[in-house]
Amino acid sequence: MKIKIKPGRMIELLPEESLLAALVRYQLPVPNVCNGKGTCGKCKVRITSGVSAPTQAELKHLSGQEIDEGIRLACAVKPQEGMEIELESGVTYDRKEAVLRNMMQTELNPGLEKILLRISAPSLADERGDWDRVVDEIAGKRPHASIHADLSLLEKLPQVLRTKNFKATVTLWENEVLDVEAGDTTQSIFGVALDIGTTSVAAALVDLKRGTVLKTVSSENGQTAYGADVISRISYANESPEQRRQLRDRVRETVNALVGKLTEAEGITADSIYTMTVVANTTMNHLFLGLDVSCLAVSPFVSASNSPLSFAAAELGIKINPRGKILLFPNIASFVGGDTVGAVVGAPEVLAEGTHLLIDLGTNCELFLKTSEAMYACSTAAGPAFEGAGITQGMRAKPGAIEGVAITDQGVEIEVIGEQAAVGICGSGLVEAIEQMKLAGIINKQGTIVDPAKNTALNAPLRERIRPGGKDGREFVLAFGGADGVDVVLNQKDIGELQLAKGAVCAGIKTLLSQAGLTLQDLDSVVLAGTFASYLNARSILEIGLVPDIAPERIRAVGNSAHVGAVRALLNHEEYKQAGLLAKEIKHIELGGNKTFTSFFMKSMYIERAS
Amino acid sequence: MKIKIKPGRMIELLPEESLLAALVRYQLPVPNVCNGKGTCGKCKVRITSGVSAPTQAELKHLSGQEIDEGIRLACAVKPQEGMEIELESGVTYDRKEAVLRNMMQTELNPGLEKILLRISAPSLADERGDWDRVVDEIAGKRPHASIHADLSLLEKLPQVLRTKNFKATVTLWENEVLDVEAGDTTQSIFGVALDIGTTSVAAALVDLKRGTVLKTVSSENGQTAYGADVISRISYANESPEQRRQLRDRVRETVNALVGKLTEAEGITADSIYTMTVVANTTMNHLFLGLDVSCLAVSPFVSASNSPLSFAAAELGIKINPRGKILLFPNIASFVGGDTVGAVVGAPEVLAEGTHLLIDLGTNCELFLKTSEAMYACSTAAGPAFEGAGITQGMRAKPGAIEGVAITDQGVEIEVIGEQAAVGICGSGLVEAIEQMKLAGIINKQGTIVDPAKNTALNAPLRERIRPGGKDGREFVLAFGGADGVDVVLNQKDIGELQLAKGAVCAGIKTLLSQAGLTLQDLDSVVLAGTFASYLNARSILEIGLVPDIAPERIRAVGNSAHVGAVRALLNHEEYKQAGLLAKEIKHIELGGNKTFTSFFMKSMYIERAS
Repeated sequence: MKIKIKPGRMIELLPEESLLAALVRYQLPVPNVCNGKGTCGKCKVRITSGVSAPTQAELKHLSGQEIDEGIRLACAVKPQEGMEIELESGVTYDRKEAVLRNMMQTELNPGLEKILLRISAPSLADERGDWDRVVDEIAGKRPHASIHADLSLLEKLPQVLRTKNFKATVTLWENEVLDVEAGDTTQSIFGVALDIGTTSVAAALVDLKRGTVLKTVSSENGQTAYGADVISRISYANESPEQRRQLRDRVRETVNALVGKLTEAEGITADSIYTMTVVANTTMNHLFLGLDVSCLAVSPFVSASNSPLSFAAAELGIKINPRGKILLFPNIASFVGGDTVGAVVGAPEVLAEGTHLLIDLGTNCELFLKTSEAMYACSTAAGPAFEGAGITQGMRAKPGAIEGVAITDQGVEIEVIGEQAAVGICGSGLVEAIEQMKLAGIINKQGTIVDPAKNTALNAPLRERIRPGGKDGREFVLAFGGADGVDVVLNQKDIGELQLAKGAVCAGIKTLLSQAGLTLQDLDSVVLAGTFASYLNARSILEIGLVPDIAPERIRAVGNSAHVGAVRALLNHEEYKQAGLLAKEIKHIELGGNKTFTSFFMKSMYIERAS
Repeated sequence: MKIKIKPGRMIELLPEESLLAALVRYQLPVPNVCNGKGTCGKCKVRITSGVSAPTQAELKHLSGQEIDEGIRLACAVKPQEGMEIELESGVTYDRKEAVLRNMMQTELNPGLEKILLRISAPSLADERGDWDRVVDEIAGKRPHASIHADLSLLEKLPQVLRTKNFKATVTLWENEVLDVEAGDTTQSIFGVALDIGTTSVAAALVDLKRGTVLKTVSSENGQTAYGADVISRISYANESPEQRRQLRDRVRETVNALVGKLTEAEGITADSIYTMTVVANTTMNHLFLGLDVSCLAVSPFVSASNSPLSFAAAELGIKINPRGKILLFPNIASFVGGDTVGAVVGAPEVLAEGTHLLIDLGTNCELFLKTSEAMYACSTAAGPAFEGAGITQGMRAKPGAIEGVAITDQGVEIEVIGEQAAVGICGSGLVEAIEQMKLAGIINKQGTIVDPAKNTALNAPLRERIRPGGKDGREFVLAFGGADGVDVVLNQKDIGELQLAKGAVCAGIKTLLSQAGLTLQDLDSVVLAGTFASYLNARSILEIGLVPDIAPERIRAVGNSAHVGAVRALLNHEEYKQAGLLAKEIKHIELGGNKTFTSFFMKSMYIERAS
């Protein structure tokens, strides 16, 4: 069931799914305190079309005026086909009520501990040094620990202890004292989950005392000025150590700016952030650390390190508590990074009993397969078609982009983001267009746009939209007279780009399964990760064969599960440790030069269900 | 038995002691490879007076010409009273053959390990990251280790591994990889033992592969420009954080200059120095680290830390391997520092069964008592008299200083450093002069210079040397017409200074013993530590009551045993760990305001044997 989120977004509900659950799954901003119990009355949405009579819970929490205006609770309202809703504009950028929270059903065990110490003051009968006093006090509460600290902490210790007459709060990370603060600060303990993407960087501020996500912010990766993709960044970095440092510093500045936004918005100090978990692809991981990437992009594609590394924040110049811990997710291989490990940690259902596939869709598509025997991962170059790039009139998902296409005998209906004239087409629109064109007989399974003269079975309104086109071959008009009067079309080359992309993904899936001695029929479930994948129409991706042909309810889009993995690892340090074990166990399958893959690839370009 | 070392130094041999053993004990430069076995023929000395016929060993190792010139082997020559020797000038500043070595009979177990790895090169079938390759290879040789490294090492790793085709040497400190170098560098592994004194800093370069001390250098502590003693340094540091940093930076510069001298002299790289052990008093320890000293010198005298701290060299700005470990000895209290712990580690005989006392003699005198039940330590302000300061014509032990005094009925015989005209008197000369004056009846046990008019029993040549003096009271002439025709004298005030100094030491000893329920008679041995103490005449210090009245053979001077302790801790990491345990167990006795001490002090100023 599809529901439209105004101004221009479509979400698809799973069977039996509540509107609230779907909004959370799509990471859309909705206040959520009681998590669907119907007790808090916070998850208000405005229903502009298809509103139904209020339920008991709604009558209890909403005023008469609200009910008259179409305000309902996302947890309680009955979803209906064709429903259109508006999210409360005030919360669009305010995720204070923990959008991500529901996805994080993990124990609260961040590995950090704040302990209030009431230390006895020195006297001639008790001349122990200040640090020794702290150590003894901690040892009393934590026997057998061999406590240590960094010099910068010892430097300030005597003054801190004397500020509140030897009442002080220590923050412990394993046996290390990360900080000592005057008085009782045990309520204030935060972490940041960081997702460093090639294009953008996202940071979530997590309250580690309460186990809630307070706010998520994101911005463009400062490295984009040096090239859009990992290969161009690697080339730039390899030209000189100075350039490598430039890239390192740019992304660190991006991260520091995001941390600054979070602390400012929530009114906390940077010093009260003690941990940061980081998911990133291997290149972003290396460039963030400033590691040598010269062997990363040339065969045999070797990284400087795939291990789960950790550093003091000061060592990386990251402006949280200087002694805070930056924990990087381990990489699996040069092109299957910590983001893939994070995606698995963030979608733990793929580790359940049975055979499960995770597809992290992006320019570089990573695949993860878990069978009852083993785990496999690979990376397949889907190219930028899914993001609208490389397509003649392709564009990112922003106002003016066609994001939905429905073709009937009578013509073409399009949905445009922002409800304006069409400017181009984004990835989700492209996938739906191709599916619809195939179903309507405008293209055949080879992807060829049919000759309108020879296909008289095709209704006239559709035939009229097929034109000879230019050097990129025959074209199909999705929208006549779009913005500035320009038609939006898909041409033969565009379709070829999509075929290459989906072929690479599909062949990768088959190769992984073949490696495990399995076939598509053995899959119990498919998890689609990546923000982009949340916008895809399940029917379309099945129809064009981007994902294996299994029942739609066994396909689940989980949004940016890599970032969710980072949050989970922050909330529960055991999840971070598990990431290290996972990365060691996952067998990487190199598709470059892999004959199985090449052979599957040829067959996977057909536009048909994959089975 | 006394032997003169030209140009102007006297050493005293213990019964049955060889000349070589005595030279080593006094830390005089003598080449020593076989350590007295008579097999290497290296310990040549030139005997200018009292030479005897060559022994078998000497005939074997020396040429006829050498024998004719009086060259003998220090291990084989029979020592004789009145013998005078010259050390080979070529070795005066060359301790390459390990002067300290003999004092360091500890297991070679520095906690550091260099392992040569022959790592398999990457291939498409083996895409592990570079760091993962290193970790796996180490894990193969060291099961169960969870290996980690600093970012600066990971940064350079890919290039280092590829320099010698994946043959590389790792340096391990516990589970940390301190460095990875191309090729086989397993032979090159060094440490520095550092003694940061208030006045001077000494550094010994130790070959941790072979267990030998290669060279020792020293220089003035760069902080002396900011005050001569710890109290003035503390005051300066407390005026502002900037001034505290100044003091920190000055002493670090001194240390770095010494390290530079060592590496240059031995032709090694600073990067091949992986550990540094540091003995220092508590103030020097804190100022070297840059810690807050504002509570150190005011009651109740609390340090920022007494714990055995360790840091990466880069964190302290010390120019050895940046990831090398700087290990500071623990302090016991604010005025009993890591140097006292070092002195105990460097003279392990004080920890043997029985009751033993260690006296570390200097401006601040630290005492350590070990009984069959417990360990105690205290600090007693001896003042600068032992170093010649505060004495009217006092001076440091350098050419022109009277360092030996013998008084007979006929007059006074003096020994002057450098065999020149007397300029003044140094500490060892002062102690011997007072002893001789007491024995000759020139002063009584109260320390008063007798009235020559009333003491006709005194021979005329001595009586003539007693003069009324000026404001500082009656004086005794040690040398008529010294340098520039000035007489060198000791006056009543000078004697009083020495009485205060020796009284403070003696009372401290009695207080410690009293704390343990013991008396002077219970002592099995006394160890005199501190370079200065090596120059003192055992008979004199017994006679004036500076040390308890026990048989002279139970008193042993061990030189700068704090520095020896630092070397031992470098050679054997277990000794460093033991230092940490020692410091925790030693009970500190505060003498300030201690009534037992005050009462002993009054009685301890008499110039008489202490019993």
